[in-house]
Amino acid sequence: MGVSRRDMLTGAIAIGATAMVPSAAPARVRNNDGIERWGMFELELAGPARGNPIDDVTFAATFTCDGDRLTIPGFHDGDGVYRVRFSPPRIGVWQWHTHSNVEALDARTGSFRCTPPGPDNHGPVRVTEDGYHFAYADGTPFRQIGTTSYSWALQSDALCAETLATLSKAPFNKIRMCLLPPVAEVAPIAANPFVKTGPGPRDWDPTRPDPAYFRRFEQWIERLGALGIEADVILYTPYDQARGFADMRRADDERYLRYVAARFGAYRNVWWSMANEYDGVKSKSMADWDHLFQTLQAADPHDRLRSIHQRNVYYDYRKPWITHASIQNGSAVLNDARAQPHRNFAQKAVIFDEVMYEGDSSKRWGQLTGEEMVERFWWGLIAGTYVGHSETYQRHSWLGEGGKMIGSSVSRLAFLRRILETAPVPGIEPIETWYEFHLGGKPFDYYLRYFGDARPTEWPLILPGRAEDPKNRFRADVIDTWNMTITPVEGTFTMAQRDHYTHHDPSRPTIALPGKPWIAVRLTRV
Amino acid sequence: MGVSRRDMLTGAIAIGATAMVPSAAPARVRNNDGIERWGMFELELAGPARGNPIDDVTFAATFTCDGDRLTIPGFHDGDGVYRVRFSPPRIGVWQWHTHSNVEALDARTGSFRCTPPGPDNHGPVRVTEDGYHFAYADGTPFRQIGTTSYSWALQSDALCAETLATLSKAPFNKIRMCLLPPVAEVAPIAANPFVKTGPGPRDWDPTRPDPAYFRRFEQWIERLGALGIEADVILYTPYDQARGFADMRRADDERYLRYVAARFGAYRNVWWSMANEYDGVKSKSMADWDHLFQTLQAADPHDRLRSIHQRNVYYDYRKPWITHASIQNGSAVLNDARAQPHRNFAQKAVIFDEVMYEGDSSKRWGQLTGEEMVERFWWGLIAGTYVGHSETYQRHSWLGEGGKMIGSSVSRLAFLRRILETAPVPGIEPIETWYEFHLGGKPFDYYLRYFGDARPTEWPLILPGRAEDPKNRFRADVIDTWNMTITPVEGTFTMAQRDHYTHHDPSRPTIALPGKPWIAVRLTRV
Repeated sequence: MGVSRRDMLTGAIAIGATAMVPSAAPARVRNNDGIERWGMFELELAGPARGNPIDDVTFAATFTCDGDRLTIPGFHDGDGVYRVRFSPPRIGVWQWHTHSNVEALDARTGSFRCTPPGPDNHGPVRVTEDGYHFAYADGTPFRQIGTTSYSWALQSDALCAETLATLSKAPFNKIRMCLLPPVAEVAPIAANPFVKTGPGPRDWDPTRPDPAYFRRFEQWIERLGALGIEADVILYTPYDQARGFADMRRADDERYLRYVAARFGAYRNVWWSMANEYDGVKSKSMADWDHLFQTLQAADPHDRLRSIHQRNVYYDYRKPWITHASIQNGSAVLNDARAQPHRNFAQKAVIFDEVMYEGDSSKRWGQLTGEEMVERFWWGLIAGTYVGHSETYQRHSWLGEGGKMIGSSVSRLAFLRRILETAPVPGIEPIETWYEFHLGGKPFDYYLRYFGDARPTEWPLILPGRAEDPKNRFRADVIDTWNMTITPVEGTFTMAQRDHYTHHDPSRPTIALPGKPWIAVRLTRV
Repeated sequence: MGVSRRDMLTGAIAIGATAMVPSAAPARVRNNDGIERWGMFELELAGPARGNPIDDVTFAATFTCDGDRLTIPGFHDGDGVYRVRFSPPRIGVWQWHTHSNVEALDARTGSFRCTPPGPDNHGPVRVTEDGYHFAYADGTPFRQIGTTSYSWALQSDALCAETLATLSKAPFNKIRMCLLPPVAEVAPIAANPFVKTGPGPRDWDPTRPDPAYFRRFEQWIERLGALGIEADVILYTPYDQARGFADMRRADDERYLRYVAARFGAYRNVWWSMANEYDGVKSKSMADWDHLFQTLQAADPHDRLRSIHQRNVYYDYRKPWITHASIQNGSAVLNDARAQPHRNFAQKAVIFDEVMYEGDSSKRWGQLTGEEMVERFWWGLIAGTYVGHSETYQRHSWLGEGGKMIGSSVSRLAFLRRILETAPVPGIEPIETWYEFHLGGKPFDYYLRYFGDARPTEWPLILPGRAEDPKNRFRADVIDTWNMTITPVEGTFTMAQRDHYTHHDPSRPTIALPGKPWIAVRLTRV
């Protein structure tokens, strides 16, 4: 047995971990350093390898630190090796003890010291208190700029390495990725999450996940984490009807979810996406999905973000196990007044994870120009929502296999991300979408006005505001979201009451604009 | 005691009602005719008038007809008169017997014959099986064209008569109306739903609803029914904070809802709107509203339609006691792609009951032109949703008191209603809103293309359709929704495959349009 230190995201050295091994089992301590807050502590014990260790062996560890107490399920990593992975939420000395129905795994105890996080470790992403945005656990805003590459993590090591290199230079801080092989036509290297029992596509044993498959997958989670990228792990898809990974029986689904939660849940950059296009899975009812969420939530004391992505029928995002809405809609982020009601219905943070893709696909959902892809991010932004990118060109599909990106939107999304670095916390709020202001921001403090594909030559600078509201002074920047320029407007604008509902500067009622598409104006309070 | 026949909506004569009165109480049979299906049977019994008859006396009657069995709560109509009102859902002989904790009201029995409905009696409105539209119980489509007049029913008899006369010539088949006085500034004739206990605004006894107040209100429900108009009865509002009708204690709320359900529920044209702008009521939580819905649902065996209207926070329309979404949104019906996601979130029929109003109000929510009011109905229509009208001019507010309508949208809504008379059943469905077709209808059978305020001079007639879909022949009409003209286009259009996703007629790829705003095109399969 042993205690291993997984400093997956920072590489920082920590000290102070100890392992007290009261039993007579062989003891081995792989690392005795401290564990960073939100890092990963891993306990490894030897147990039975025969029979079906998943169904026959219970194994968990309880971790305590002052008043805090968390019981973390363990998992069998093959060959009689059992692990518990724990990401400590607070600094201090954590005591642990194990529980098992097998003597070799039961009643072990120990402790480790949890140390302050390193400079690049901000903790897991959570929904902010207002309910509509995201932040890391240390309070750093997380401004979601997502992408999707369904099968990248199942490709060859060389292609995976290329994908990671691409991501290291890209603006994306979240990637949607399938855990199980989604489509038969993209033949992945990693094709068998469960032990094969014969040559046919349905010849696999749902009671025996193959540790090697999941071990390979989690190395990519870890590598993404090192790049500061959240791994939005998709647990089911409707696509591979030949192999039928989405058609397991309930007990098999439960085992799968518990295994995945125990194995991956301690990685602080993991999000759970229960499914892609859940309503395409014909073998599962809404009640089944609800049950799987409850199973996952119970199996994941790290309480990672949870959502589900649809084809046609929006899931009910108000259900308590949903942390944020993950929506596919091809036209919702073409106007802030289209996107904003999704917040109102969900009463939660909204990510439009699929809004059609940049590309030259023969499929109409893969034919956006780069301009159209970027436009969707800006409309979503000023509606107080978040958007996801992908691209699928005929000569190369990032959406399918990862590798390189060849589209033109990526650099513009990087430009958008830089703009957001100075935007208000916790995020951009929609502003009076009923009245077509097309403004997002923080009222009386910071505004983004977006014009989409219109080509205005001036903007009447009219802001919502009543007599009792503050009348502030602003400086303005004209932003060309496509050509990536920020042009300050000389001087400032001092707001005064214009009518019952609006403010303006009577001495400077308009801002001149270049008559080009994809323009935004930023107003910052002086 | 007696059995009275209320033939509220048809005036048809029915025969066969009998009353068997086994007890020694004075018996009186007011009508012994039959009762139409979906009409109203009313049983009247004498009981105790002292104490608080609402809280101290239980009273209900069970009605049976072959296998059907319904227990209908009764109510005290003042002065010791107790009534049970029952709207029989099927034809046949209905047996009834009463239950009470008071001997004079208990164990009475009788029967009546339920006869076929008259020609104008289509039964109550229900949501259609597909979930997104409405129909009367006999299957006749109900295509909602709503209006709102909050306090009309609380005005003088003369003004109420004027309102009814106005409605008799108007296109509206549903009206939203407050049961309790909503606003102090509009001094109604009917101001005291509960018995006053002193001169102050809060001096009223929530345990004692005034029967005269509710009796007056129900005559307007009945008169609306005779006009074929559904009464969308608003049970709470946040507006009158002086009198605080929305701030009752839970037991008082329950009593009020039970009283109203027993009293009004047998009118087949009643809908329940739990509140207008529920989220403006500061004394009630979401859990309170949920509880009130459950109370109402249990108290209303007639199971009338139930919804609730919001100011900012959309109620969760997926909750099981909600039959349809009732939404306030000032910009959702300015485009079908804005409106359609509301269906997807609610997974139920959607009525945009408040979309701002036609008028010249100083308030910006009452400044729509007639054109803008009508435009909202058309966008809502092709999104598969329904819309509500009202108008509030400075010289006369239909919205507040009823009376006359002076706006310009009404005649255009009548024109719209006539168009809907030949539209598909159960209703207009949205068609591929992701791809900006701006079409509603029934695929391959009937289409409405709406252009809003655009002024196209031609329309490339391109319809969604794949190779395997039927390629039909259509005739076309150009509809001027404002000038109320329907201009047939000569000849027909025979669809052929255009590309992977669309059909067109290669010999006639476009339809000429007049270059004016508010144009629609109707395609009808030949």
